[in-house]
Amino acid sequence: MNPNNRYLMNAWYVAAVASEVGPEALFNRKILDTSVLLYRKQDGTAVALHDRCPHRFAPLSMGRREGDEVVCPYHALRFDCSGQCTHNPHGTGMIPKAAKVREFPLVERYGFLWIWMSEDQADLALLPDFGPLDEGHPNGVAFTYMYMKANYELIIDNVMDLSHIDHVHGEIITTRGQLSPIVPKVQEASRSVSARWEWSQTPAMMIFAQFLPDPDAAARHYFDITWTPPANIQLSVGAVQGDKGFDEAISQYDLHTCTPESEFSTHYFFATRRNHNEEDGEYNRLKIQGMHAAFEDEDGPIIRAVQAEMGEADFFLLNPVLMSNDVAPVKVRRLLRKLVEQEGEYRLKRIAS
Amino acid sequence: MNPNNRYLMNAWYVAAVASEVGPEALFNRKILDTSVLLYRKQDGTAVALHDRCPHRFAPLSMGRREGDEVVCPYHALRFDCSGQCTHNPHGTGMIPKAAKVREFPLVERYGFLWIWMSEDQADLALLPDFGPLDEGHPNGVAFTYMYMKANYELIIDNVMDLSHIDHVHGEIITTRGQLSPIVPKVQEASRSVSARWEWSQTPAMMIFAQFLPDPDAAARHYFDITWTPPANIQLSVGAVQGDKGFDEAISQYDLHTCTPESEFSTHYFFATRRNHNEEDGEYNRLKIQGMHAAFEDEDGPIIRAVQAEMGEADFFLLNPVLMSNDVAPVKVRRLLRKLVEQEGEYRLKRIAS
Amino acid sequence: MNPNNRYLMNAWYVAAVASEVGPEALFNRKILDTSVLLYRKQDGTAVALHDRCPHRFAPLSMGRREGDEVVCPYHALRFDCSGQCTHNPHGTGMIPKAAKVREFPLVERYGFLWIWMSEDQADLALLPDFGPLDEGHPNGVAFTYMYMKANYELIIDNVMDLSHIDHVHGEIITTRGQLSPIVPKVQEASRSVSARWEWSQTPAMMIFAQFLPDPDAAARHYFDITWTPPANIQLSVGAVQGDKGFDEAISQYDLHTCTPESEFSTHYFFATRRNHNEEDGEYNRLKIQGMHAAFEDEDGPIIRAVQAEMGEADFFLLNPVLMSNDVAPVKVRRLLRKLVEQEGEYRLKRIAS
Repeated sequence: MNPNNRYLMNAWYVAAVASEVGPEALFNRKILDTSVLLYRKQDGTAVALHDRCPHRFAPLSMGRREGDEVVCPYHALRFDCSGQCTHNPHGTGMIPKAAKVREFPLVERYGFLWIWMSEDQADLALLPDFGPLDEGHPNGVAFTYMYMKANYELIIDNVMDLSHIDHVHGEIITTRGQLSPIVPKVQEASRSVSARWEWSQTPAMMIFAQFLPDPDAAARHYFDITWTPPANIQLSVGAVQGDKGFDEAISQYDLHTCTPESEFSTHYFFATRRNHNEEDGEYNRLKIQGMHAAFEDEDGPIIRAVQAEMGEADFFLLNPVLMSNDVAPVKVRRLLRKLVEQEGEYRLKRIAS
Repeated sequence: MNPNNRYLMNAWYVAAVASEVGPEALFNRKILDTSVLLYRKQDGTAVALHDRCPHRFAPLSMGRREGDEVVCPYHALRFDCSGQCTHNPHGTGMIPKAAKVREFPLVERYGFLWIWMSEDQADLALLPDFGPLDEGHPNGVAFTYMYMKANYELIIDNVMDLSHIDHVHGEIITTRGQLSPIVPKVQEASRSVSARWEWSQTPAMMIFAQFLPDPDAAARHYFDITWTPPANIQLSVGAVQGDKGFDEAISQYDLHTCTPESEFSTHYFFATRRNHNEEDGEYNRLKIQGMHAAFEDEDGPIIRAVQAEMGEADFFLLNPVLMSNDVAPVKVRRLLRKLVEQEGEYRLKRIAS
Repeated sequence: MNPNNRYLMNAWYVAAVASEVGPEALFNRKILDTSVLLYRKQDGTAVALHDRCPHRFAPLSMGRREGDEVVCPYHALRFDCSGQCTHNPHGTGMIPKAAKVREFPLVERYGFLWIWMSEDQADLALLPDFGPLDEGHPNGVAFTYMYMKANYELIIDNVMDLSHIDHVHGEIITTRGQLSPIVPKVQEASRSVSARWEWSQTPAMMIFAQFLPDPDAAARHYFDITWTPPANIQLSVGAVQGDKGFDEAISQYDLHTCTPESEFSTHYFFATRRNHNEEDGEYNRLKIQGMHAAFEDEDGPIIRAVQAEMGEADFFLLNPVLMSNDVAPVKVRRLLRKLVEQEGEYRLKRIAS
């Protein structure tokens, strides 16, 4: 791994959509180059262990469950959900002290399983509040997962610069060229970068027009996005007509969040919650299908092609031409790099002291 | 890349058969490890640009044309055919000074598009004269393209030592063992290596016999090949009967030319022009199909297997046993290496001065 | 290749099951990273040559036979079965002194072709005695071959610790948990490591029960395994009832033997000879199919997954938790490493003197 691309470790990454890990499953996913086993205890609580038996390195996910415990497929060592070996069928049955599997802190929140990959103490205060995903009718929210052969920062770049949507996407999320000329208002804080666009268009964006009082008339719109570490982008978008304020808009609240599988491959998760037509399950199903297809079939090929063209080169060393629409994504790249470097310095100091 | 395998830069490489790049196409090919976009202006002139938007590195070939210009698929920057950015839909529309795509000199000649990949001034004097391809009826010439997972010098070796043809190829281009015992006359100049074989056989080579006065009788033959840098081999072959001179032979003039995609993969181009049955389009179609199949299905597997067996090792460091039939290909390898080294020295001097 | 994973060179490796190399075949297999050509002379004797023409490095196995000789597919150099070039169709026909292909000592024994890959003099005394494979009815012995994407030492580990069989394998070779609690008796000599388990179970192992006087009754069993370098494991297993000794057991004698293709891929050979129902060809066919399936479908996925999880890391550097069942495999790893290191020191001394 390129040292310029170290991961931010003291952070919560999405390990899976909550629904991906069923009650009986031994679910494997590689996260930050590490094999992780996810499963649910009988009470439904999800847990995460290193997916590697400490004896002979077989993946525990190839084994079987025994109640809340996991049995290695190779020599049947059994581990509880804290990773402690509880049964050794060999010889005297003595359990070696070192027979422990690393457990990763895991919390289920906002429809996702969030994992803490650092050796440092897990800090729930570092999990941002994505509360809007939880509020409302269950048919008003949906989740999806995409696998991208690209560095995760290329996906953050994509979302942080929404000017691409008129050029990359079809009817479903176009502003018909209204967005590109707008220089968004960008704000940076110690652990976040936000950008906001406001504009009018006639008719409104297709996803909103039918829910507005006059589908054919002009509507005022906004996009509001906020990145928080390591790789979360909250995105609000809405439209309103007449003299109503944006707080009364027909709108949706999305979360894009990326988890590196490796330096050049990413688990890309997405959730969307809307404030209209919330109870319509069929609409919900079609909506998430459409969003998934837009990211997978329209952004995906470009992001993958950019990665292929960049190869293993560092983004900034390739001298990108940066423009007004790059302010937000470049601020994110720099802040993320700063946070990663601070983490490295902090570790060095701790080792030295 | 192995430093012993640097490319010769101040040279013309074939980027494509002219007919590969249609009037509307945005055609991509990787050449000397660099992504190249080829397309034709509305007046038919072909141009070559670096296939990488300088903004976010998306391949322009995934974009769309607008007249003679190309629009990036990601954020819709537009570039003219010199690589200059002519339109930026973002913010104020200001075009950054650095928003230029590298243009590569490109000339269309002899049925091919020739590209100059060096940073130095393009020098048309370095494009050899392959004029015979242009002379005669359009049905008397044909072109083909093959992709080879092998270093390009292995393909040059193959053609420079024609002694292989009796052992590798079937009826279509055999001399029935006449060729191998002949030590060709080899000539070396400052930028070329030639070899010539002359022999008699009864009947003549199958590709010529039917066009000779007496198809079953003996005929005198010649092969004449000339390599010029970087990777062009002109090959003339003919047969004649009675007391005629070789200038009256039933013959064909071929061009084999190789363009490295990377150190271990090659774009292999071939053209053939004959001086007999020139107007027969069906014969022309079958002939190029037969030649293509001979190279692809007979030489191809051996060349690829040799590459696989050599791995990343240097040819000479593997201590090949060299024989009389290797004189010409070894002279080419040494002269090419010398030219590449001279280029390196010239660059160093220029940097130092 | 990781220097910690150098191969033991002065040793006999299985190149092929004898029946894999038919009378007319030019058989290629990569052994210790080297391409090897195996074929049989007209008198049936198998020979092994470097599968690389010394001229242009084409694989001779792509060529053709001429009596006991092999003709290169590229330029038709011909080699006898000692690797000496016997015919050069080029120029004057002079055969260059260096036109020799390396011949590898090869012996056919115990149903396998054994190859000596070292530059040192082959030493038949280093081929262990697997004589039991030769004794008995031809329908009482069978052979198979498996290809494993894993380092060969992971396969040795698997067999040297038979405690895995109750956890990995199905009915065919289970002891129903009897084996794991037993700490085997392990013996180490200068060039071997053995382990022996003895136990009783009711009924006997499925592979033996039907051949015992009382298929449903208890039977005393044993497993006896002996590793010898480089990668051979002889395995005897049997069951007996009443007051008979193990020398009267219903039993079988197996040989597991591994030949590295490369550091991370292995040719895995297996032979089995039984002392019961020896003339039953159909039983023999089903038995070897069942054994092959057990190794390929039950051990194979775990061994491959362990390799994938380990990546290129050294086994001991990953800090495996070692238990009583690891004594034998760890002794083998250490002894093999010691033999490899001794070989390296011996070479250094010879060079220095």
